[in-house]
Parts: sequence; structure tokens; C-alpha cells
Amino acid sequence: MSPANMAAQAGQDLALIRQRKPLVHNITNLVVMNFTANALLAAGASPVMAHAHEEVEEMVSLAGALVLNIGTLTPHWVQSMEIAGRKANQLKIPVILDPVGAGATRLRTQSALRLLEQVKISVVRGNASEVLSLARSGGGTKGVDSIHGVDEAVEAAGVLARELGTVIAITGQRDLVTDGQNLWRVANGHVLMSYVTGMGCAATAMMGAFLAVQPDPVAAAVGGLCFLGLAGQRAAQASRGPGSFRAAFTDELMAVKPEELTAGALIETS
Amino acid sequence: MSPANMAAQAGQDLALIRQRKPLVHNITNLVVMNFTANALLAAGASPVMAHAHEEVEEMVSLAGALVLNIGTLTPHWVQSMEIAGRKANQLKIPVILDPVGAGATRLRTQSALRLLEQVKISVVRGNASEVLSLARSGGGTKGVDSIHGVDEAVEAAGVLARELGTVIAITGQRDLVTDGQNLWRVANGHVLMSYVTGMGCAATAMMGAFLAVQPDPVAAAVGGLCFLGLAGQRAAQASRGPGSFRAAFTDELMAVKPEELTAGALIETS
Amino acid sequence: MSPANMAAQAGQDLALIRQRKPLVHNITNLVVMNFTANALLAAGASPVMAHAHEEVEEMVSLAGALVLNIGTLTPHWVQSMEIAGRKANQLKIPVILDPVGAGATRLRTQSALRLLEQVKISVVRGNASEVLSLARSGGGTKGVDSIHGVDEAVEAAGVLARELGTVIAITGQRDLVTDGQNLWRVANGHVLMSYVTGMGCAATAMMGAFLAVQPDPVAAAVGGLCFLGLAGQRAAQASRGPGSFRAAFTDELMAVKPEELTAGALIETS
Repeated sequence: MSPANMAAQAGQDLALIRQRKPLVHNITNLVVMNFTANALLAAGASPVMAHAHEEVEEMVSLAGALVLNIGTLTPHWVQSMEIAGRKANQLKIPVILDPVGAGATRLRTQSALRLLEQVKISVVRGNASEVLSLARSGGGTKGVDSIHGVDEAVEAAGVLARELGTVIAITGQRDLVTDGQNLWRVANGHVLMSYVTGMGCAATAMMGAFLAVQPDPVAAAVGGLCFLGLAGQRAAQASRGPGSFRAAFTDELMAVKPEELTAGALIETS
Repeated sequence: MSPANMAAQAGQDLALIRQRKPLVHNITNLVVMNFTANALLAAGASPVMAHAHEEVEEMVSLAGALVLNIGTLTPHWVQSMEIAGRKANQLKIPVILDPVGAGATRLRTQSALRLLEQVKISVVRGNASEVLSLARSGGGTKGVDSIHGVDEAVEAAGVLARELGTVIAITGQRDLVTDGQNLWRVANGHVLMSYVTGMGCAATAMMGAFLAVQPDPVAAAVGGLCFLGLAGQRAAQASRGPGSFRAAFTDELMAVKPEELTAGALIETS
Repeated sequence: MSPANMAAQAGQDLALIRQRKPLVHNITNLVVMNFTANALLAAGASPVMAHAHEEVEEMVSLAGALVLNIGTLTPHWVQSMEIAGRKANQLKIPVILDPVGAGATRLRTQSALRLLEQVKISVVRGNASEVLSLARSGGGTKGVDSIHGVDEAVEAAGVLARELGTVIAITGQRDLVTDGQNLWRVANGHVLMSYVTGMGCAATAMMGAFLAVQPDPVAAAVGGLCFLGLAGQRAAQASRGPGSFRAAFTDELMAVKPEELTAGALIETS
């Protein structure tokens, strides 16, 4: 797809989200639950948070997408993610993973890798260091240990995408999305986004909403990132700092129109 | 009570909340804890969240009301609710239940029903589908399976209220409160409230604050709903979307004066 | 240190926080996690929340300070705090404790005392009643049972500080900091701060950020309190209530410059 087609698709997908209001099932961290739910709701989706082993299979069966996020993981919560993830796989419901803090502790790295083994994941979204740590720890990916910059993260993302058969999205100043073959860059966004806790987690959840209406995970990842970033750009104009920005950002998630998303999406291939 | 008397009572109860600052003990979900606490605090009450089995009996003993909410339930958390609820019953402290997601999974429906069996609940607040699912699953309430609209939810609410001996409040575009005999409708509110996560949970908690000063559960439920809805109406005037609305709403919970609540309450009987 | 030197130090420490972006590891309560993380991030620090027994030792090893807060404690979470706290002690990473609700239930009082026994704490921050309950329950501190006012809390704080060899900070209309020998008072702040849930917890976390760059716990506690209070004063000017205040407060945590903190700090000795 050309960048222009991708942008058109993003707008159409946003219209579908608002029309269908897909249920997005989140098993996520304690810090961002409220912000994630408000972001999804403002965008037009229907968020639900549920993590009890006894109910996650039933809940995910009702959902259009499953969002897994290990930000405040425990082994018990990771089990919930596995149970829900396997059920989602059975039902062909797309699953997206946010490996928060992978590389910081062994529990995080190993839990993310375990989820990637146990569950077929459509998209993994992380920052450069998280993606690097997954590539590094995955075994067999020689040389990854010496990687420290953005360009090397691009390469690691490509390797990881091919090995796992998943789409990798790396968010930063300019976001990257790759399926291991092609590479897309999204330049939407604003620096104030990095001063709001859970903005990366919101990006993951928003991609989940796009996955619920868009079967191509590359298009869903790119669309979600453009949408979030455009809302951030618009919100920044009326903000004095991260507190007022956060409120304005949530306003914009509701205000951005599908045609505005198509017009404002900053997508490049490389 | 006439609607005018009910409105006068709501204003008096709000004044009492601000004077007495009742402790409201919440065992609630992980998504809304912060918003619930801020809403109660802005209104003038003293929120506390505590769920450890080891302390809930002691904590609820200090409280003016107990708020139970199964939004991110696990069996362990439901046990906390039972322990606290039974103690509250012993001490004649009013208990209010929010059966979030009842009907979506068996765990939610059964946990809500179990709490209704184990604990004497003064008010149950839910949306139409939650109340319908409780009525449907309660056994013996034939025909409820075919119910899908608002009017049928009204009927189910009445049946449930009589069977359980509790007040049922259904929130939606126009809220309903019934004790199984009489029916009250509250027209306060604004559509932006449905775009803020946890607004229903805040309604439940606010009714809890009113229950802490008002022994009649119908008056407490109606008063809490009028207050929340009026704050929402006022907040909407200065808002550009759900983010700025949420901040303005919290402002209004502090700003609304008792006499303004009495004047602004939109209550009907039917 | 003279008040003027203390104010100069606070400004320098704020500059260091923004330069070094220290990782602040929080094991805190479910209500305030999001607000705490946003406050630390806006101030310039790097917050992380992690509580799994399996990872807290590794996580705290990466941190500049450890913040323990028992606001929604369970025995399992208190164990996490002990594990992380002991590791922090081994590595000479400063630990700060917020004994939320000590005195309200035995679990809270005993857990706070247990943490004070098991872990060397640099600063304890609470309100007057929490500090009084710790002094009262600590045993051997005769007469503390009769203490009810602010002046008596000052005395209890001094006794507790000497017994435990820690700095005690009591926040209220005018904050107090004592190491058991000297007493500092901080007059920064605004009454709206008491209408935002988790403001005390944010104070504790912010002192944690200062402790990460400032080895003297008295200077760190005073600096953190001045900074938070000044942000509150500035935010109140543009606020209509606790909702808009909360957003403006977060804005100010990013906006306050080191030299403004030094100029605006209201510190007295007594």
C-alpha cells in the first residue's frame, strides 16, 4: 500500500471504530488502566478490563481485539494473559502485546518471550530498548547485543518480525512499523506525549481498536499510530504542560474526524 | 415524597455530606479507583479504598457507607466484599452494589448474585443490561429472557427490587430508581458523561455518600443521581470533549451548592 | 543549613532531577499509581511501578530511590516492599515510606511498623494522625496516647525520628520536617491540594525523586515539599476547582524552574 492509501485506510478504519464500537479487552497494568479506558472510549471503542482466570476466556470471546500489557506484571497476571491469548487465537481474535520494561528485569523479558511463544501475536509495540531486549534474548540473533541506536533497533525489529511472524511497532520521535519485509514510518506526534504516563500503552490499546476493524496488522498499527499522534499534535496547540495536554489529548481523540486523520497522517515508506 | 420534597432533601443531604465528611469505604475496581476517590473528595466526602481480608472489617466499621463494585473482580476480591458487607450489615452501615458487567460473564453474574444473597444491599445501581441479567439469572423470574428494551428493564427492576427487598437504580439517558412500589425518574445529566470511564461507578459511589447521611435509600439514590447529573450538565457547558469535561465535572462536584442542587434537580414520578 | 541555603539546595536538586532523570521505583497503592507516575514524569524523574516478588530486587537495583506506600496494602504487597527495601538497603539506595492510614486499622499500623523494623527508611511522610499512631504504637513512648493536636504531633515526630533514626515529615497546612534534632517548616502549598486524591502520596514520591539526587534526607524532604507546594500555589491561580487544579498542578511540575523554586521556597526553622 502506498502512504496515501494507508492514510485513506486509517480514516476509514476510524470511521468503522466509531460505527461498530468494538469491544477491546485489555489485560493491562495498574498504572494506565484508567487512561487507556478513557482513550479507547473517547476514540469510539468500548474498553473492558478483566483479568480473573475464571472469566477471561468468556470476556475475550465477546471482544474484537485483545490487548496484553506487562507493565505491572505478576506471574498470576501473565497466566491470565496466556489463557485469554490462547482463547483469542482459537477464535481468530487479534492479539497485541506491549512488553513494558522488557530488558529491565528478567521477569519482564521472559514473560514477554513466553507470551510470544504461547500466543500468536499480531502486533508487538514497544520502545527501542524493549524491542532490542526481546531480539537479544530470543537466542540465535547474534550481534544484537551490540545494538544501541535507532537504526540498529530497526534491524532488530525486522529480524524479530520475521522470526516471530508478527508485526513490530517501535514508538519514539518517529515511529516505525515493520512486518519484516517492508518498513513504514509515522511522523505524527508531539514531544509532550512523552511526558504523559501510559501514552505508549495507549498507543498499543489504540492499535488494538484498529485491529478490531482492520485485518491487516500493518495497516492497523500505522493507523493507530497516526491517529494517536495527530490527536497529540492538535492537543499540544492548546496546552501549557502535561496536565492540560492530557485533557486536551482525550478531547481530540473524540474530535478528530476520519477525513482529518486521512489528511493529517504523516506516513513514509523506507 | 413529592419530586419537590425529594429535591429539597437532596440539597439538605449534600449540605450534610459537606458538614460531616462521611468516610465512604470502597471495594471497587482497578480502573476507576482514582476517579471515584477524586469525585467523592470533591463532593465533600472522605473516600477510602481498602480490600485486604485482614482489614476490611475494621475499616468498614469506621465508615458511613460501603460501596461494592465488581468491575475488575477476582474471587479473592469478591470475598473481601462479602467480609466487609457482612460486617456492615451487623453494624447497620448501608451497602451499595455496582454489578459491573453482570451478564457479560458467568463470574460477574454469579458474583453479583452471591453478594446479593450474602449481604443485605440497600441500593443496586447498574445499567439496563446489568439489571436485566440479574433479574434473568435470579431464577423464578419467567419471561425476563425476552426483555431487551428500557421499559422491560423498568419492569425487571421492579421485580428484582421486590424479590431482593432492595432499591434498584438504572442509569442511562434518563435514570430510574425504584423500590418495587414506586418509580422515580431523574433527567439530570449530559451525554458527555457516557464518554468518561467510571462515570457509572462514580454514580454508585456518590449514592454511597448520600446513603451515609440519608437513611431512606430511595432518597439517597435519587439525590446522588441528581447531584452527579447536575454537575455533568454544568461541566458540559465549558468542555470541548471528554478530557476537559472530566476536569470540569470534578470542579463542579465541589462548586454545586445545596440550594443549586435543590433548584436544579429534575425528578419525576411515574 | 539556613533556610536560604536550604532553598538554594532545593533549586539545585530540581535541576539535577531534570538532568539525571533518576529512576524512582514505587511500590504504592492502586488509587494513586497513575497520578504519582504523572507527577514524577512531569517533574523530570523516571517513574516505575513494579511489585512482583520475582522482580523487585532487580528493579530497585536500577533505581535512584525506592518509594513504599501502604495505601491499598495486602500482606503480599507488604512482602514486596520488604524484599525491595532490604535490597535497597544493601545497595545504599534511599527508601521513603508513606504509612497511609496507619492508625485506622491494625494491619496498616503493624505493617508500617514492620517495614520500619525490617528496612532502614530515610524519610517517613505522613499526616499528623498517621505519625501519631506510629509513635503511639511503637511501644515505650508513654503519653503519646493523649496526643491529639499539631504541637503534640511535632513532639511525637521528634521522638519517632530519634527512636528510628529517620527523618519524619508531617504534611498539613504547614509542613514539618524533623530529624529529631532540628525542625523545619514549609509554608508552600494551597488548600486545593487537599481536594485532590493522592497529593500526599505525590509528596512522598517527589521526596523520593529528591532523595535520588540529594544525600541529606532533611534537604530532600524539605526540597520536595517546597517544590510540590509551589507548583500547587501557582496552579491554584488558574483553577476553578480540584479537577482543573489537578491538570494545572501537573503542568506546573514541569514549568517550575530551579531558580523559581529557590526564590519561592517558604522555609523556616523553629
